[in-house]
Amino acid sequence: MTSATRRYRGEARERRRPIGSQGDSGPGPADGHDAAVILERSRASVDPELRAVIDSLPGSMRRVALYHFGWEHADGTPTAGNAGKAIRPALVLAAATALGGPAARAAALGAAAAVELVHNFTLLHDDVMDRDATRRHRPTAWTVFGDADAILAGDALQALALGLLAADPHPASSAAARRVAACVVELCAGQQADTAMEKRGPAEITLDEVLVMAEAKTGALLGCACAVGALYAGAAEEDVDALDAFGREAGLAFQLIDDVIGIWGDPRHTGKPAGADLAARKKSLPVVAALTSGTPAAGELAELYAAPYDPADLDRTTLAVERAGGREWAQEQAADRMARAMHELTRAIPDPESAGGLLSLAEFVTRRSS
Amino acid sequence: MTSATRRYRGEARERRRPIGSQGDSGPGPADGHDAAVILERSRASVDPELRAVIDSLPGSMRRVALYHFGWEHADGTPTAGNAGKAIRPALVLAAATALGGPAARAAALGAAAAVELVHNFTLLHDDVMDRDATRRHRPTAWTVFGDADAILAGDALQALALGLLAADPHPASSAAARRVAACVVELCAGQQADTAMEKRGPAEITLDEVLVMAEAKTGALLGCACAVGALYAGAAEEDVDALDAFGREAGLAFQLIDDVIGIWGDPRHTGKPAGADLAARKKSLPVVAALTSGTPAAGELAELYAAPYDPADLDRTTLAVERAGGREWAQEQAADRMARAMHELTRAIPDPESAGGLLSLAEFVTRRSS
Repeated sequence: MTSATRRYRGEARERRRPIGSQGDSGPGPADGHDAAVILERSRASVDPELRAVIDSLPGSMRRVALYHFGWEHADGTPTAGNAGKAIRPALVLAAATALGGPAARAAALGAAAAVELVHNFTLLHDDVMDRDATRRHRPTAWTVFGDADAILAGDALQALALGLLAADPHPASSAAARRVAACVVELCAGQQADTAMEKRGPAEITLDEVLVMAEAKTGALLGCACAVGALYAGAAEEDVDALDAFGREAGLAFQLIDDVIGIWGDPRHTGKPAGADLAARKKSLPVVAALTSGTPAAGELAELYAAPYDPADLDRTTLAVERAGGREWAQEQAADRMARAMHELTRAIPDPESAGGLLSLAEFVTRRSS
Repeated sequence: MTSATRRYRGEARERRRPIGSQGDSGPGPADGHDAAVILERSRASVDPELRAVIDSLPGSMRRVALYHFGWEHADGTPTAGNAGKAIRPALVLAAATALGGPAARAAALGAAAAVELVHNFTLLHDDVMDRDATRRHRPTAWTVFGDADAILAGDALQALALGLLAADPHPASSAAARRVAACVVELCAGQQADTAMEKRGPAEITLDEVLVMAEAKTGALLGCACAVGALYAGAAEEDVDALDAFGREAGLAFQLIDDVIGIWGDPRHTGKPAGADLAARKKSLPVVAALTSGTPAAGELAELYAAPYDPADLDRTTLAVERAGGREWAQEQAADRMARAMHELTRAIPDPESAGGLLSLAEFVTRRSS
């Protein structure tokens, strides 16, 4: 191990903040790798690519996509801004930059747009399947345009994503397309496991299968984003795989935190009603950890979950998850996953200055409050 | 024009049979290009590719796909055979063979499987959107496995299709993937137009927009299949485009005949209840042609279509479409489209012996009785 790596590892440990702490969006690292700046720069570079490819869609699908991306209101008038943080394309560009500098970043813009298209295709479809009415503080596309238009817009976004990669003359594009296509299958498997789980009794679900599901649903695409960036930098296969693992672990940490926020988050930040996940009897990670904890609170939680939701029981349910150790477990798991992510990152990119962008983004997603 | 082309064109004219005639599956051409044999050979070559890629899917999506393809019953036990004629992969292979011989055919097997995967992805999704309960004489996937599993299996099949092309080292694979991805967008636009049309009053719909919709929904993928085969044969761009046009025109002929069969077809052959399209108030091509004919029968049909379906009115409705000229128009249009298809085919492949396979397949689809 070089002394740079040692310093970098020490720095990574030091920099880690309390994971999932509410509203902690304090100042970023002082080394010029501020996550907000990285995200903003990524948006400025990727949005024109995204807009161009979405504008190529025929009428009605373009309208659904522009609405879903937050660029238009339901009536087709332009909005002031756009929704979503676009973490995934930023990870593509950060990985490309870390391993290949500005030239690799420039080459990877189309691929970054492709990854964001895939993410949004899955959101459109997941919202239809889950009957979710709100996304990024707005009514979901299917509630505005109907199921068929939302499904078709999603299908078209997947085709745009893989078509963009097929049209990219870069030597890495076909390897990237293979990874993205395999990732779509994994995302679908994760969503399938999730919807199937919602139909089963809480007692039948193991913590392991929820973790596998969360890795497929969330980790896979963050990992794929990092791997695609590495491919465009011409990285060696083992470094591409290490970046995939980095993204997966960070993604799982992100999901754990997201689930914590889904229970204890402030509705003003989350855009969802308080206790929405518990009201929907969601078997999120902290809930399943609580249910399988063998504590007295687990029994109480199981009883509450077996009955239809009663708003009067919300506080008791929340407390039962906490007393059964669900919150603590999720926060510890998130910290553990982040440590593993750092380990993979240092393996592929020993130079802390080069890895800074990816590190900041990973810390950002696990520090988010909404 | 060479004398071979003249002979070929004459032969094509001579060979044309009454289009859409029921149960006319008489003996095929005597030149060794029998459509049934071509389809059977194509199946034998493509099915192993398809099975391998579908077997790579995670558990539940594999099960839905195997059921949908007709290889498994709903309980997961194997069936005796498979459903569907698999015209599209046969067109890929016939186009590759016509322009590049057996080597091109062998190279195009994965691409043929990809095209069939795309077709089946759209069937899975269309059935969910249209709430169609029957497909190939069996309950549709969503009725057996639920909407979410059918949507996800469709999503995964699209990813498998484009992933297969991305993994294909053939120099034509990325151009093929671009065409397939663009075709998916067109298929989605066609289905979108179709579902949107079903919500509008019959009087608001023009024949032109139904034709555009049918070309997008059906012609686009048949054209894409032929173009992909041509790409794998290393054909010149103008020949690739001519084969695309050939497939599109043949596809539109096929759709016209399919719509005729949807009204006048024998339920024993179609696998649908008699008059299902009219009962569903479907604005199929013959119906819109009838409605826009300006005849007295058009007025009668419009009145019938404005009222909820009454089985007692089925015969009257069927007769009104016929008397308003809907059937005749559709059959003439189909013949006209087939003539255009032949024109494009002779442009790209002047040698009748080479074009024989594609010609047989085009005639087969427009002669089908179910």
